[in-house]
Amino acid sequence: MAAATPLLTDELDIVIPTIRNLDFLEMWRPFFQPYHLIIVQDGDPSKTIKVPDGFDYELYNRNDINKILGPKASCISFKDSACRCFGYMVSKKKYIFTIDDDCFVAKDPSGKDINALEQHIKNLLSPSTPLFFNTLYDPFREGADFVRGYPFSYREGVPTAVSHGLWLNIPDYDAPTQLVKPAERNTRYVDAVLTIPKGTLFPMCGMNLGFDRDLIGPAMYFGLMGDGQPIGRYDDMWAGWCIKVICDHLGLGVKTGLPYIWHSKASNPFVNLKKEYNGIFWQEEIIPFFQAATLPKDCTSVQNCYIELSKQVKEKLGKIDPYFVKLADAMVTWIEAWDELNPAKA
Amino acid sequence: MAAATPLLTDELDIVIPTIRNLDFLEMWRPFFQPYHLIIVQDGDPSKTIKVPDGFDYELYNRNDINKILGPKASCISFKDSACRCFGYMVSKKKYIFTIDDDCFVAKDPSGKDINALEQHIKNLLSPSTPLFFNTLYDPFREGADFVRGYPFSYREGVPTAVSHGLWLNIPDYDAPTQLVKPAERNTRYVDAVLTIPKGTLFPMCGMNLGFDRDLIGPAMYFGLMGDGQPIGRYDDMWAGWCIKVICDHLGLGVKTGLPYIWHSKASNPFVNLKKEYNGIFWQEEIIPFFQAATLPKDCTSVQNCYIELSKQVKEKLGKIDPYFVKLADAMVTWIEAWDELNPAKA
Repeated sequence: MAAATPLLTDELDIVIPTIRNLDFLEMWRPFFQPYHLIIVQDGDPSKTIKVPDGFDYELYNRNDINKILGPKASCISFKDSACRCFGYMVSKKKYIFTIDDDCFVAKDPSGKDINALEQHIKNLLSPSTPLFFNTLYDPFREGADFVRGYPFSYREGVPTAVSHGLWLNIPDYDAPTQLVKPAERNTRYVDAVLTIPKGTLFPMCGMNLGFDRDLIGPAMYFGLMGDGQPIGRYDDMWAGWCIKVICDHLGLGVKTGLPYIWHSKASNPFVNLKKEYNGIFWQEEIIPFFQAATLPKDCTSVQNCYIELSKQVKEKLGKIDPYFVKLADAMVTWIEAWDELNPAKA
Repeated sequence: MAAATPLLTDELDIVIPTIRNLDFLEMWRPFFQPYHLIIVQDGDPSKTIKVPDGFDYELYNRNDINKILGPKASCISFKDSACRCFGYMVSKKKYIFTIDDDCFVAKDPSGKDINALEQHIKNLLSPSTPLFFNTLYDPFREGADFVRGYPFSYREGVPTAVSHGLWLNIPDYDAPTQLVKPAERNTRYVDAVLTIPKGTLFPMCGMNLGFDRDLIGPAMYFGLMGDGQPIGRYDDMWAGWCIKVICDHLGLGVKTGLPYIWHSKASNPFVNLKKEYNGIFWQEEIIPFFQAATLPKDCTSVQNCYIELSKQVKEKLGKIDPYFVKLADAMVTWIEAWDELNPAKA
């Protein structure tokens, strides 16, 4: 018998960026109601966001962010869901689950509602195996194990810092792919969780994402996107590149696969293209940069790693566009703000 | 509409190592009968192996191997399914599919018989993506694509050299895991194919394996196992480590996942333990060796890469046990024999 998955209600916050009433929570009520929600209201702060009755939440709009962070609020994006990372910063919990407000409960192949949060908790509480690939996927799942030829000294695994969930229905495609394949839907339920191997980057999507704030929180910065910035829709990608390099350096794991959520609505590909085109161009240089990035051995905290990475961003990516100099500075501001709100425990 | 998968009947051989009558082929008849079989008879060469009527095959026993290779036959294992690699050498086809004789046709979740060979062909004919992880798995499968944030310059992919299939029912566990979990069965059908990222090793199982002989054949050597050797059940693992290092060096891809076969019968864990115990011990040094192995840029053919690797094996692993000196020599013999039977085309 498998042990029941702990709920972790006192140890996990759900972070939701939004510009509208949170009707989508009705569908999630059976799964989310026991948890505390941190709602980050984007756009016009004078607008009132309605939250269905019975949910325990705190809500921050732009005025709140400015008041709490003062001049350091400049590191938090505006008019872009990247603003969600403010929620990571003000949380006091060990775990974060973040979800978009157009994501609904998906069904597994047997027709049962998928408790996405429970699967993220399973993923985060079991080790990752980044040093060697296991062909039966996550060896810590029920009914699976390490296969013949898997070195025994690697079987303890490493702590899991990130759990990246997927999406049925509308796939997370870039604008060009959306334009070319407007009708494509993801209908394939892949019953797997796996560790992204050490040294391999992946496109991290922020739609359905869990992480251990204690292990990797200060690196979960979603960058400068949206209002006043030359780029959008790369917030989660940026965070994904940074956290993967730092997880690899610190010996932490990143899992991807289950759980699925139901992604209801494709965003407008023309608007997306406008947001993305610089990113599509720049990522051709950014990704080799992150693939080659190494951190010095004396960087043993996430904060140290992140500050070091910001220096490398400024030096190496600053040549692509002045935006990266500004982003590198924002990375430093983010860490300063993080440390201010999260003073080291005695 | 997806294009039909080509059968490649004139370009693919099925290699089967065996010590018994090939009754298992009855179940595979609808899928295998159009192909040429290369049967490598292990053990007593005076025994007659019965092959069901209607199959086109050639059969080699130990006497044949000795006659064809002369003194170089020493590189082909005896009393171990590692002998199968002789079949790779005598084939004249571009593709090889190799399968164990205790593997039957599996069913997909809808109850339909899985044509394993067709899926291997799909895997081998579509590119691999070793440079960056795609979270929706193989982007070349129907209904899938590259997700947002996947660099466009990587989307062409690289040629696929190896397709590693999996097993339902009896999982491919090592002896200690078999002993601890004698009742465990793999019942999870994971509907995915994925590329093992560059720089990551995996435990390659020879039970259900396809590869492109032109691209990687000379590295598909299953080593010295069984009779007269201090180790068994590491033949496919050895090949897997070698091919992965060489594929990474040459810019070739390795896929794992679908297709599943039905693995009918667990081998005896006590016998397995006797075969494996040296390997279990040695792999703790072998795997770091392969993880760190690099090949010089001027190694541009599989043969060159393999000879270079044999030198590194002799130098670095020879210290563990004299067995590796013998194995390194056998690697060279294998290449000599390969080139003799497969002279370079004009």
